[in-house]
Amino acid sequence: MSTPTLTKTPREVREEIRAGRWRGVTSGVAPGYVQANVAILPNDLAFDFLLFCQRNPKPCPLLEVIEPGLTEPVLTTPGGDIRTDVPGYRIYENGEYTAEVESLVSVWRDDLVTFLLGCSFSFEAAMTDAGIPLRHQELGRNVSMYITNIATTPAGVFSGPMVVSMRPIKQSQVVRAVQVTSRFPATHGAPVHLGDPAAIGISDISRPDFGDPVDIYPGEVPVFWACGVTPQAVALNCKPSLMLTHAPGMMLITDQRDADYAVL
Amino acid sequence: MSTPTLTKTPREVREEIRAGRWRGVTSGVAPGYVQANVAILPNDLAFDFLLFCQRNPKPCPLLEVIEPGLTEPVLTTPGGDIRTDVPGYRIYENGEYTAEVESLVSVWRDDLVTFLLGCSFSFEAAMTDAGIPLRHQELGRNVSMYITNIATTPAGVFSGPMVVSMRPIKQSQVVRAVQVTSRFPATHGAPVHLGDPAAIGISDISRPDFGDPVDIYPGEVPVFWACGVTPQAVALNCKPSLMLTHAPGMMLITDQRDADYAVL
Repeated sequence: MSTPTLTKTPREVREEIRAGRWRGVTSGVAPGYVQANVAILPNDLAFDFLLFCQRNPKPCPLLEVIEPGLTEPVLTTPGGDIRTDVPGYRIYENGEYTAEVESLVSVWRDDLVTFLLGCSFSFEAAMTDAGIPLRHQELGRNVSMYITNIATTPAGVFSGPMVVSMRPIKQSQVVRAVQVTSRFPATHGAPVHLGDPAAIGISDISRPDFGDPVDIYPGEVPVFWACGVTPQAVALNCKPSLMLTHAPGMMLITDQRDADYAVL
Repeated sequence: MSTPTLTKTPREVREEIRAGRWRGVTSGVAPGYVQANVAILPNDLAFDFLLFCQRNPKPCPLLEVIEPGLTEPVLTTPGGDIRTDVPGYRIYENGEYTAEVESLVSVWRDDLVTFLLGCSFSFEAAMTDAGIPLRHQELGRNVSMYITNIATTPAGVFSGPMVVSMRPIKQSQVVRAVQVTSRFPATHGAPVHLGDPAAIGISDISRPDFGDPVDIYPGEVPVFWACGVTPQAVALNCKPSLMLTHAPGMMLITDQRDADYAVL
């Protein structure tokens, strides 16, 4: 099994994935390109979910919506196929997680609408460029993610808590981390919280709800960003008949450059 | 008939309008507060239109979507009523402009979905604060608006040309005008064009398609921003059975401050 290198283009990485030659967490892969969280729903829920995203842009920053039954993300990833180009998928039925699969071809339906949402991986390259180390990347782990007590704004049948990703940041670099990520509102943007995890309902920072734990060293502050896994938490709440998502940490790598989404 | 002054709050201005005591163009009224373009459609078109807005954020920057049949913009304008709080409305049937009315109460239906879209008036206060004069305000006119040859990105049944607003800017202030408006992506943001009107399909700058003409003096550059009247142009193209909009230049004045929508 070959491994995507830092020099492969997004299209080349997707071809590796589509051919079954590579599976894994996409953090750090094809740096400088926008990665997308994936949420796929039946058409009868599509308006409510589009509205949910519009009302909750921090956890659900929309990059592209693919119309019912179509599988190519024409605007962000021309030539791509949403059923095969993501390293792993999860299937939820009636709000229950039922399977993790490597392809959606066998479960695809003509009434499915795909939502691609910005991902915090996209601003990690900007933080690295700014000299802010990212522990989970150094350790080769998935980022730590937590279900919080921050309520999203409901829309139709969709409601539920915000999921956040956490990165330990040196006290001296916290302000810079806020500045750097604020430039990328299309990929979660500025932190939603920094400091005491209990203030947003996280009782044990060493036990993330998704992803892997990392240590927080003395002199570091846990900084929390809204996370595109939020739709998964929402799926558990609203119990749609079917919802397909990316597997945690395994994103669609689009052809869009982070720089194209930066504000000022 | 009383006239809203610069010291009235948005709620007070809306009460004047609702009571029938004031009608007029809202440019310059309640400065510092976000004004909204209004587009109202039957529920069966709501997903397509929401997607159209997502794909065309410059002409259609969504501030709020009110769910079917509901009339209060809870998120941006609590206590407001979309049927009565706008100084003037237009009715389109099958793509044809059929009436201009002062209230939507008699035409309201339970299946109507309201879209509130950011308005360029909202960044005019920022330009004025930056020392950039606005001729149409000085003259007490509505801003000049033009149908261009810039295509929007289609979504479902919706497609059509972008409508822009134009302001003459002194050559020495053009860069500053770009900077100031770039801070407000939720209210159309940076210009879509500056300079030669013919480059975007405007053959006669002295004859706007909507609003009033203004002179362009020697040493001034016409600067063009995406305009929330675009949905009206789109309505003419896709011929929905019913579409209700604000009348040109007559917006919903929300309770949100421009500063809340500024990036950095």
